[in-house]
Amino acid sequence: MSDKISKRLDNLRKAMKKNRISAYYLTTADFHNSEYVNDYFKVREYFSGFTGSNGNLLVTPDKAYLWTDGRYFVQAEKELKGSGIELMKMGEDKVPDIYEFLEQNLNAKDVLGFDGRTITVSQGKRFAKIGKDKGFDIKFKKDITCDLFKRTGFPVSHAEVLSDELCGESPSEKIKRVREILKKKKAEALLLTRLDDIMYLYNIRGNDVEYNPVLMSFAYLSEDISVLFLQPEAVTAELKEHLNRADTMIMDYWNIERFIGNLQPKTRVMIDPGQVNYSLFKRLKKNCCVITGVNPTVEMKAVKNETELKNMREIFLKDSAALTRFMLYLSKHVGDEEFTEVSAAELLFKYRKEIAEFRDLSFGTISAYRENAAMMHYEPGSAGEVRLRPEGMLLVDSGGQYNGGTTDVTRTIVLGEITEEERRDYTLTACSMLNLMHVKWLSGCTGQNLDIIARKRMWDEGKDYKCGTGHGVGYILNVHEGPQNIRWKALEKQAELKPGMCVTDEPGVYRAGKYGIRIENLLVVKEWKETGDGKFLEFENLTFAPIDDRGIDRSIMTEQELKYYLEYQGSVVRALESSLSGEEISELKKYCGLEAGI
Amino acid sequence: MSDKISKRLDNLRKAMKKNRISAYYLTTADFHNSEYVNDYFKVREYFSGFTGSNGNLLVTPDKAYLWTDGRYFVQAEKELKGSGIELMKMGEDKVPDIYEFLEQNLNAKDVLGFDGRTITVSQGKRFAKIGKDKGFDIKFKKDITCDLFKRTGFPVSHAEVLSDELCGESPSEKIKRVREILKKKKAEALLLTRLDDIMYLYNIRGNDVEYNPVLMSFAYLSEDISVLFLQPEAVTAELKEHLNRADTMIMDYWNIERFIGNLQPKTRVMIDPGQVNYSLFKRLKKNCCVITGVNPTVEMKAVKNETELKNMREIFLKDSAALTRFMLYLSKHVGDEEFTEVSAAELLFKYRKEIAEFRDLSFGTISAYRENAAMMHYEPGSAGEVRLRPEGMLLVDSGGQYNGGTTDVTRTIVLGEITEEERRDYTLTACSMLNLMHVKWLSGCTGQNLDIIARKRMWDEGKDYKCGTGHGVGYILNVHEGPQNIRWKALEKQAELKPGMCVTDEPGVYRAGKYGIRIENLLVVKEWKETGDGKFLEFENLTFAPIDDRGIDRSIMTEQELKYYLEYQGSVVRALESSLSGEEISELKKYCGLEAGI
Repeated sequence: MSDKISKRLDNLRKAMKKNRISAYYLTTADFHNSEYVNDYFKVREYFSGFTGSNGNLLVTPDKAYLWTDGRYFVQAEKELKGSGIELMKMGEDKVPDIYEFLEQNLNAKDVLGFDGRTITVSQGKRFAKIGKDKGFDIKFKKDITCDLFKRTGFPVSHAEVLSDELCGESPSEKIKRVREILKKKKAEALLLTRLDDIMYLYNIRGNDVEYNPVLMSFAYLSEDISVLFLQPEAVTAELKEHLNRADTMIMDYWNIERFIGNLQPKTRVMIDPGQVNYSLFKRLKKNCCVITGVNPTVEMKAVKNETELKNMREIFLKDSAALTRFMLYLSKHVGDEEFTEVSAAELLFKYRKEIAEFRDLSFGTISAYRENAAMMHYEPGSAGEVRLRPEGMLLVDSGGQYNGGTTDVTRTIVLGEITEEERRDYTLTACSMLNLMHVKWLSGCTGQNLDIIARKRMWDEGKDYKCGTGHGVGYILNVHEGPQNIRWKALEKQAELKPGMCVTDEPGVYRAGKYGIRIENLLVVKEWKETGDGKFLEFENLTFAPIDDRGIDRSIMTEQELKYYLEYQGSVVRALESSLSGEEISELKKYCGLEAGI
Repeated sequence: MSDKISKRLDNLRKAMKKNRISAYYLTTADFHNSEYVNDYFKVREYFSGFTGSNGNLLVTPDKAYLWTDGRYFVQAEKELKGSGIELMKMGEDKVPDIYEFLEQNLNAKDVLGFDGRTITVSQGKRFAKIGKDKGFDIKFKKDITCDLFKRTGFPVSHAEVLSDELCGESPSEKIKRVREILKKKKAEALLLTRLDDIMYLYNIRGNDVEYNPVLMSFAYLSEDISVLFLQPEAVTAELKEHLNRADTMIMDYWNIERFIGNLQPKTRVMIDPGQVNYSLFKRLKKNCCVITGVNPTVEMKAVKNETELKNMREIFLKDSAALTRFMLYLSKHVGDEEFTEVSAAELLFKYRKEIAEFRDLSFGTISAYRENAAMMHYEPGSAGEVRLRPEGMLLVDSGGQYNGGTTDVTRTIVLGEITEEERRDYTLTACSMLNLMHVKWLSGCTGQNLDIIARKRMWDEGKDYKCGTGHGVGYILNVHEGPQNIRWKALEKQAELKPGMCVTDEPGVYRAGKYGIRIENLLVVKEWKETGDGKFLEFENLTFAPIDDRGIDRSIMTEQELKYYLEYQGSVVRALESSLSGEEISELKKYCGLEAGI
């Protein structure tokens, strides 16, 4: 592998020299700053060998550096071995970020190169600022890798139309709401480039990115017109009719730059600088007034409406039943049937597929046995064929795309004997998850205010998990969705948690080389009560899969936590009673530690 | 009162007309953006009648508006009654802040006036921006109130020199540290206008603002020179010698503008835009390069050194003993001696004065009986002579300035019968205070992360207190000190809590017209332990005054809270054992609910 990478980097360096570029920056992004991208865009992976979802590569004539975050440190160290690429651990003390690095290492006469379509406005502006201060130039118009990296075809799929009954609000109604917000922001138009926002706005879906039901698209929305830019191959008769009802015209995806170039000069166009790509922004700035702000669609999409919530409640119940059936089967048969990490994931997939509304998985299932689970984003199979034995723990983080919602759930299954240390950490994780599920707060809080409720039990013992506690989840859309999250350390201004927003609740304990535990439910923000002191909010829980009672040491739970625990396990049994067989229910009760019924 | 105010506003409006000003803005600030100011600067109070420490007045030809924060809503409503001034409740929904208000109400051809010396750079810039957008002008060079408001003399007092033994670090050493930070920020000089920062840097104190031991001063620090600007009357022979040792020259306070005007053109001068006044900034910008950033002295001052901490521990013990003696005496004699809110505060003052290191109070004692305590910043006596009876509760929030530290402590004393509701809220308050005292957290957190630990017990019952949970406290300096605090709602970027920083821990329950409860200790951040997951921090408690056991309902405490409570009460008895008489100790044990000793 490392030879192959060295050769690729050599070729890249030759192209850099030819183009007079002294440092070339490769990101993980497509032209839409998507978190997950089609293979077409995996240029950073091609040149570094690192397969994680977050990583940026900087190549200089004699060195190369890869930045990634805490989820991927272990994996990146493995995958970069022998490549000569230096791992830059984001967020660690004394590790400069890309901006600091450029400031420290690039000088006058240097040229920084990158494909401007794979960088956001915010990033591009910072690069330009540093370049100006330090006197180096920037080249962003050319992708110098195009001859070096033989790409797969550009992703394309047929557009699928979702019914208003499934979405609860028609595109026309959503467009009307966006226009009202634009008016308030004194913008004449919105340029939308975020794929899931576009899918949400027009109630359409696609299949251009694995697990993310999106279409390569742009949208332009003014007071008078609504334009959706799609590849011609994506357009169907049904779509045309659907968009016609929403007074939306279709244009060719590849014409977006030309369209922008033809806009009335000085049009006040709003863009989200954290989303729109730098090339598009530079084109827009040539003749329009650019107004920056968060896309109005971001919060609209995050706040689920009553129809979406109703569908989600049903789908989460079905998804929980499939997961529970899997957990019970695996626990029962791990001693007498052969299972590997991969075959376990396949069994769970089989149960999910039986659900009528099933469309796809919402991300690649993480099925990680014992020490493999210490890697938060472990890919089953990557460590060879790992056989499960009736001992230790299996972490399964998975989810499905359904007509009715997108699920994301993690359970850690106790397959047999575990150590006291493992049981203690399992219990802490369960308590953390349950404590957050039950928190009540004054309206106005962000996830940053709430995070410590989950983490407190860990911090009290000097333990911590190196990731956020939770993230938003889309509705028949991307499994990671903003703007809300649950994190103690804010990288940017945090979004207020509002009724209808959902977040995962997924604390964990990770012990490199030993084990990993994570328990994850999905919660929805809802109104609790209004008192003389203000409006208070709480969470509604959507996930009803059991917590493995064999992992629990009740003696280290507080009275309150034990109450939460028993209540939760009871609620799982009640929720699944009609979906499981009588035998399964009695197994479930035992699995839950509810011997004498509920 | 309201007639008097109307007349004053009429006169102000005449002056506005004469100066062609359509809206005049009056703040609470002196020329240094101090939180508390000498009477000389109380121009907003003069024109509005509102006496609170935070409030800004905007006067237009036919209306007037006063902005203040939640601590003062009740008081402001009372004091503004009949004045025609509209109360603008800061932070409430739908109440515009001053910027939004100006945007909505001022138009082209209008002129906004204010004294630029009483506005910070940040505020002035925002005014200027709104003015530019809306087309209105700004006049900031003239104080049009000078003929209308007969001021007291400009505050002045003799400079006092603190020994290095008291401060733990000499001015020369502190100046060296500042210069290192300036070098890193690529600044050639620092213009310091914040009074407590200047006192801290040069180890001097004064008496120019009630309770705040500061001198009217400016400072200018470059790589080569250190200049302290003081009024000539403040300078003593001892001070000259002291500053000489620190290579610091003295200039006249009133020459600061001229000095700035004479700086080498293009000098890169750093200022804190949240601190420096707008007039000074405009002068500086004429010939210098202005670099903005937080004053390096802010964090230096906030992180107490070992000498300061050692002195503080001793002083807090003595202060706690004085307060405890007062609490015991009052509890015992409230039935047979005559007490008022004011005389109770005087008794406490008497006990404090007996401490050898006592200098002054650190703020006006709040002694608030029953419903008066619902006003967070109530001034005893303002509701007439309020007699204490052996029933209900007395809230006493007080502190002292000592050679060895500044204290701030609140206790709510149960004088006799209280209701079940009062006891419940008293217990919640005690639990909130104790829970925060015991929190442990991963290094990197801000007070925003921790606030919910104090507030959780309240929020679980739909209750909330409308103020922060805690603030920093100076060392023989201002009782409110940044940058750290404990607040869930951040108005600006929060400061990381670092070892050596201290914060108050003062949750409460306030029921307008009924009662108010607050319990406040002072905590210092310290290292707890380092594990494989990172460095963890915790608090050390400095306040050892009892919690009134008659206010406590142990049945609603969790097991953990009861443990914290009994441990705390025990620690108070142990801490005060050597300072109190045998009789007082046995009374204290009873007061603490520790019948059988500890």
